[in-house]
Amino acid sequence: MGIEKGEGSPWAVAVDLGGTGIKGALVNRQGQLLRYREVPTPAAGFDQVWPRIAGLISELRDDGRELGGNLIAGVGVGVPGALQPDTPDVVSWAPNLKWRDVPLGRRLREQSGLPVYLENDADLAAVGEHWQGAGREFMSFAVVTVGTGVGCGLVLDGRLYRGAAGTAGELGHMILLADGPECSCGRQGCLETLVAAPAVIRLARERHAGPGPWPQEARDVFAAAGRGEPVARAIVREVAGYLGWGFANLLNLLNLEAIIVGGGVGQAGELLLGPVRETVARLALPAAGSLCQIVPAHLGNTAGIIGAAALVLRKRGLML
Amino acid sequence: MGIEKGEGSPWAVAVDLGGTGIKGALVNRQGQLLRYREVPTPAAGFDQVWPRIAGLISELRDDGRELGGNLIAGVGVGVPGALQPDTPDVVSWAPNLKWRDVPLGRRLREQSGLPVYLENDADLAAVGEHWQGAGREFMSFAVVTVGTGVGCGLVLDGRLYRGAAGTAGELGHMILLADGPECSCGRQGCLETLVAAPAVIRLARERHAGPGPWPQEARDVFAAAGRGEPVARAIVREVAGYLGWGFANLLNLLNLEAIIVGGGVGQAGELLLGPVRETVARLALPAAGSLCQIVPAHLGNTAGIIGAAALVLRKRGLML
Repeated sequence: MGIEKGEGSPWAVAVDLGGTGIKGALVNRQGQLLRYREVPTPAAGFDQVWPRIAGLISELRDDGRELGGNLIAGVGVGVPGALQPDTPDVVSWAPNLKWRDVPLGRRLREQSGLPVYLENDADLAAVGEHWQGAGREFMSFAVVTVGTGVGCGLVLDGRLYRGAAGTAGELGHMILLADGPECSCGRQGCLETLVAAPAVIRLARERHAGPGPWPQEARDVFAAAGRGEPVARAIVREVAGYLGWGFANLLNLLNLEAIIVGGGVGQAGELLLGPVRETVARLALPAAGSLCQIVPAHLGNTAGIIGAAALVLRKRGLML
Repeated sequence: MGIEKGEGSPWAVAVDLGGTGIKGALVNRQGQLLRYREVPTPAAGFDQVWPRIAGLISELRDDGRELGGNLIAGVGVGVPGALQPDTPDVVSWAPNLKWRDVPLGRRLREQSGLPVYLENDADLAAVGEHWQGAGREFMSFAVVTVGTGVGCGLVLDGRLYRGAAGTAGELGHMILLADGPECSCGRQGCLETLVAAPAVIRLARERHAGPGPWPQEARDVFAAAGRGEPVARAIVREVAGYLGWGFANLLNLLNLEAIIVGGGVGQAGELLLGPVRETVARLALPAAGSLCQIVPAHLGNTAGIIGAAALVLRKRGLML
């Protein structure tokens, strides 16, 4: 496997492939983003997305030559879906991209001539927060991303826990209400249907009684709650109640030191996390709940990229 | 730390301290029970229980001398509660024994002059099934014991997962029904209140319409269901529905290869596990549910003892 020649400490090309955007960066061994780029994700299938990914990586390699020409240790890619357990080169299913059995790793390796490593994006967000963010001081924690859906990466006893087939961490599909709202997975009452952005908007539409149009985005509901608007405050309390219930179940099972909350809804900060902590204190067993810190993510949208860089540096033996 | 002199391969003294009985055995490195003893657990506190434990261990050492006088590598004890995280010598809380902060490890070490190791009993059941039972072929699995309560030990990526403070695996307190039956933990609708033996008996009392007295034990309800009695069959289906729901949430989170079911209720076998599997197939994400085998425990009531022996042999470097 060829790696590019250059001076100084090697760098990683890190990519976070999302449903709306493809983020990429050149990252050094200190976890610093030397150059960041982002392009929109085309709505169509692999054939449209592929040139964007390949182009982004090519541009980042050009950036690398411009910035000093250090060795590129490899390419790490966070994928919003599941990888084939025995062939982590193949994306077996990525619902937001409508991909099935896409040999992304092989294609990128052939195109770039570099080592290429794929991993689930929620898992990489956990790795990123562990390396450079809110998870640095913890050995067992979850990074829960609440946005369009609910993602969850688990670090247990200091190591990423992927599960038998790499699909662990589906906290978003923990069923809380047997007769609850319909979920994209085909079931009912999954945590995701009660706390993710579409749930916040649905509640806002159901509850709106006053004059004027309701805000269309979850962040507007949180902003209204922040201004003290009573209906918005009640919605945030309801969402926090379900999220805290899911967290209590998670903590009783895994006795984590921390739950690190990120994503668009997670960015609501203390407005959301305050009542979440109250619910956890009420619903988790004291031994599991009192120990756990529930804190905001530090790395925001770059957690996945930093995790992808860590993946490359670890696989190449450049980092523990 | 002195260990007893003797010929041949060392043996472990293994104890499983339960709310109703104290089980003990002399176990060799092949996991065979060379001698088994059981005494009832006195209802009163530590002062009454202590002489029974110490006496049982002393008798097992006498058995060892009689059987060939092999080295005793140490004493392993499974405890129905939590150990102090930094001092696994002290039982911080064992609700069924009404113990708080009992220095059991130190007392046993002083009394026996042998190395003594304590561990949570559900965790040791998982270790036992991993070594000698239904978990031998799996790297990531749960051993769920459904009896008076619901216990759960987790082996993840081949290693016992204890959690940050050693309290992981409280599957029994996963809240499924926010307004459900009251639980001994002070909350409502925990899985334990819906599937453990007292729940089976409660349902039987509520539903009984026919002539004659209802059976007083959960196993009688399962026996009636096995004979085709319609009310009993409906109760088993209801219990299986809740257990399958809890298992689906567990599998979505941890993507396990197997859930191994033991305990008094678990002994109902296919009568219970058949409908549990159907519920899991319906409620778990296909990637998590289809992979997982839901199977009966192999070791029955001795899983904890065999796990306690494994603990001793591992700590003493006699087993990987």
